Amino acid sequence: MFNKLCLIGVGLIGGSIARAARDRGLCKTIVAYGREIDLDNLKEARRLGVVDEYFINLEAAVKDADCIVIATPVGAIEKVLGELQPYWSDRAVYSDVGSTKGNVVDAAKRVFGSVPSNFVPAHPIAGAEQSGVTASVNGLFDDKRLIITPVEQTDPKATASIQQFWQRLGAIVSIMEVDHHDAILAATSHLPHLLAFVLVDLLGRKDEQVEIFKYAAGGFKDFTRIASSDPTMWLDICLANRQKLIPLIQQLKQELDTMELALENDDSQQIFQTFTYAGQARQRFLDQLTN
Amino acid sequence: MFNKLCLIGVGLIGGSIARAARDRGLCKTIVAYGREIDLDNLKEARRLGVVDEYFINLEAAVKDADCIVIATPVGAIEKVLGELQPYWSDRAVYSDVGSTKGNVVDAAKRVFGSVPSNFVPAHPIAGAEQSGVTASVNGLFDDKRLIITPVEQTDPKATASIQQFWQRLGAIVSIMEVDHHDAILAATSHLPHLLAFVLVDLLGRKDEQVEIFKYAAGGFKDFTRIASSDPTMWLDICLANRQKLIPLIQQLKQELDTMELALENDDSQQIFQTFTYAGQARQRFLDQLTN
Repeated sequence: MFNKLCLIGVGLIGGSIARAARDRGLCKTIVAYGREIDLDNLKEARRLGVVDEYFINLEAAVKDADCIVIATPVGAIEKVLGELQPYWSDRAVYSDVGSTKGNVVDAAKRVFGSVPSNFVPAHPIAGAEQSGVTASVNGLFDDKRLIITPVEQTDPKATASIQQFWQRLGAIVSIMEVDHHDAILAATSHLPHLLAFVLVDLLGRKDEQVEIFKYAAGGFKDFTRIASSDPTMWLDICLANRQKLIPLIQQLKQELDTMELALENDDSQQIFQTFTYAGQARQRFLDQLTN
Repeated sequence: MFNKLCLIGVGLIGGSIARAARDRGLCKTIVAYGREIDLDNLKEARRLGVVDEYFINLEAAVKDADCIVIATPVGAIEKVLGELQPYWSDRAVYSDVGSTKGNVVDAAKRVFGSVPSNFVPAHPIAGAEQSGVTASVNGLFDDKRLIITPVEQTDPKATASIQQFWQRLGAIVSIMEVDHHDAILAATSHLPHLLAFVLVDLLGRKDEQVEIFKYAAGGFKDFTRIASSDPTMWLDICLANRQKLIPLIQQLKQELDTMELALENDDSQQIFQTFTYAGQARQRFLDQLTN
């Protein structure tokens, strides 16, 4: 599909894109760009054969590339777009993998005045608690969801190109409005992660914390695993999507108020309703899918 | 170890006790008692060979039993103790498997005036989202934690007997004060479950609920799985342990307030601290274990 793919950042996601693109023969050459501080990771990517070459000079990295994917943490995307601007090529397509999209579109507007027509914001819903190129795997995106959020001025050809690229990387691609993407992801990913961090922080500060971990049953173990995700990445994501996240936090506190009151008043019916509705939610969803 | 084990209730836990006891040759005869409404499950337990016999007559069920384990939902334990009282035998040991222990001890006091010396409250920290005898498995307790909470008047021989029984069923047994057990379990199990129910309820009521489930990434999927646990059982548990649970809900709301404010004020440092502390909590615990 592409002559030269340039990955800006080659961590878990960037590395997994490179591995899958090579495995499926989608690009002749795959290179990575990183900062000097990332040199160890870049060298490792080269050593593992994940990329053909790496650069700490951006101009050299993107030279003749016909696909450039920004695979840095969300918080770095505006800076990267600013650095890419002098070398921006009309003959390439650009994309990113940020977990929030409104802030990426805003960043592009600030850097370019308006979103370049060949920049197609995208978000693969895949990942893990690990990070770095050593955590990258070939099949990471197989049968995973990927959301593309083109804006009004996006060139449909660029969108089609990124869509096809991701489909051939193994993903199930949906196209969605930027704002809608951020609302859905705040609910399905950002709030649950915030909640896991907050709960583990709360319990980890208690005097009985050693016992709390020792006797951790199913429930809490899942929370500690989620809360072992990269704090910098999740800080970026939560700040970037705070306009969608804050109302959800407020609604959750209201629900907790309701539960607290119901427990105090021995209101079995209220609690049972909540638990039952929640327990059936996944089943309702599965039913809707098959109908 | 025992001539006749009588299980009051043969669901996931009761059935798994029976399977493991038989597998390890701990009891000559294993019987189950249930209500008429539970007849299908009792028949299934017999059909599967999990128990030798089943009864809907309590007197017949416990006759000559030297170990009686109450494996009903927490909310039913007081009723069961009341029904057992006329047939209570000094030559048997009694135990239960309730997830909360303060309420079980209180129930025993209400029924018997004081906790019988041969009743040893216990709690296996094992289980799953499924319920019923068909979900029971032989190795459910292998290397799982089990907490015994004897009270002042408990006969040490009865405690030792139950401790050995559970060790031979595969569990790692700890002995703990009743109140301490309930505080630890509120943190490590009851609050996480309540939180999962509340979150899935909240998101399941949104207009975008189908999409929220469709694009569920790692985080939310774990919550929906936890929230598919038996609502009746968790209602019982949360009500039984509400004195420990309510303060934790209040503390959690305070932490959510802090996060909301930090997001509003762009206070990266506060959020980063919380996320980092949480992310390292499991590692700190693992380090403490090995030191």
